[in-house]
Amino acid sequence: MDNEKEKAIGVFDSGVGGLTVFRELMKQMPRERLIFFGDTARVPYGSKSKETVTRYSEQIIRFLRTQNVKAIVAACNTASALALDDIEKNADFPIIGVVKPGAYAASQATKNGKIGLIGTEATISSGMYERLLKDINPDARIIGKACPLFVPLVEEGLLDDPVTTEIAGRYLAGLIDSGIDTLIMGCTHYPLIKDTLQKTVGDAVKLINPAYETARECSLMLEEKGLLNDKDIELGETAYRFFVSDEAEKFKSIANMILPLGILGAKKIAIEDY
Amino acid sequence: MDNEKEKAIGVFDSGVGGLTVFRELMKQMPRERLIFFGDTARVPYGSKSKETVTRYSEQIIRFLRTQNVKAIVAACNTASALALDDIEKNADFPIIGVVKPGAYAASQATKNGKIGLIGTEATISSGMYERLLKDINPDARIIGKACPLFVPLVEEGLLDDPVTTEIAGRYLAGLIDSGIDTLIMGCTHYPLIKDTLQKTVGDAVKLINPAYETARECSLMLEEKGLLNDKDIELGETAYRFFVSDEAEKFKSIANMILPLGILGAKKIAIEDY
Repeated sequence: MDNEKEKAIGVFDSGVGGLTVFRELMKQMPRERLIFFGDTARVPYGSKSKETVTRYSEQIIRFLRTQNVKAIVAACNTASALALDDIEKNADFPIIGVVKPGAYAASQATKNGKIGLIGTEATISSGMYERLLKDINPDARIIGKACPLFVPLVEEGLLDDPVTTEIAGRYLAGLIDSGIDTLIMGCTHYPLIKDTLQKTVGDAVKLINPAYETARECSLMLEEKGLLNDKDIELGETAYRFFVSDEAEKFKSIANMILPLGILGAKKIAIEDY
Repeated sequence: MDNEKEKAIGVFDSGVGGLTVFRELMKQMPRERLIFFGDTARVPYGSKSKETVTRYSEQIIRFLRTQNVKAIVAACNTASALALDDIEKNADFPIIGVVKPGAYAASQATKNGKIGLIGTEATISSGMYERLLKDINPDARIIGKACPLFVPLVEEGLLDDPVTTEIAGRYLAGLIDSGIDTLIMGCTHYPLIKDTLQKTVGDAVKLINPAYETARECSLMLEEKGLLNDKDIELGETAYRFFVSDEAEKFKSIANMILPLGILGAKKIAIEDY
């Protein structure tokens, strides 16, 4: 494939949750080829340090570059929050994380300047959303809350369940009391429990889905650079390819819960060698 | 330290849960020096493949051997179930997992031969407990149930909480209906919710704690080999040392929930280099 436009977009995540971003890219850019890498051997990143998450992310980007991609989307909030600043410094190609588009959309949406943020321990304590938001809207205030049980609850399939509702009530009580009018779903799994979250915070609070915003940002960026693919994918072509670092069966079951594809499997690669 | 008896016992786990085994070793063998390694950069193992878990375990054993240990305890059920068979084949020193002692104790405890087993996906689907039990007691039958939410619930501190009770009720309903009279807590975190589990299954069901059984087995094995330390640890000596693969703050908070020590911290090492 000589034409730069026809190259794929690389998408990576600590595991499978990033497929919610992949799904948005598919929806918003149906002509784009996509390559997904899920670091299922080292998932999750959310409880790990900046140094470790940066090292892991760098290995993945080296791998994706061997796949001849035209741009990379870090579909993982933790990687975006902890590692992307360092990685962007050295990058000679477009790379987009989910944090900036999420922070930007939240700053546009809020009326009272009180923005709630839910995510992993690492994402919340990184302070990354706060720093970005201060640049965009100095008056806005982020109130963060780590919600470590949401990912395992989603992975158990308890998307619409009294237990998830109960836990959501406990996690979000403080945010509701703070009077937020906007809530960033700062972890790729959370859009899967969007309905439960919306019911818990009430209809007056606007939910921000960084997956959606990131796909939009990616599309705009590729258009600006003249890199959007303008030819349809041919019938029968494998436009979407999946790689993982472990052969976990889990990939398939959760992938098929998120994507409307019927994924047959993913290829395992030795990510530590990159 | 020239005396073989005075060398430490190495203990490892995928994360911090294995400290429940460490705690039993401390209690049952107060004269032993102990070195703990928690693979906090790659935790959890429970959803990962045999190949990956074996590679990780081999790296850890190579690290622990550099610490001049006299024996190694694999305090992780997943590592014990998936990797220990392969590792024992090549080992020239004593190595003990938690699965064998747990299976043995369960086979002694059961009267009706129906044994429940709860653990991670990987431990349950490995079939390791079944295979071991078949050798000890061909009439016994294992009924397994993966309980992936228990570890995150414990790590959120919901040890005695209606949500944990509700989830335990769902996970264990099938086992109770099967008429088990014995239940193996096949994951290091589970002894921390022992009371909730006991209430759920009722007093007629005997709970087996592989951590306790493993410490007992380790003590007997060292005694047989003449390797039990017979001198008291000197006052002021650091008898217990802790290593991790990531500097996750989480280690400290959960470690101090499990151990009666007031752990100040752990040393981070680059486990991938071993």
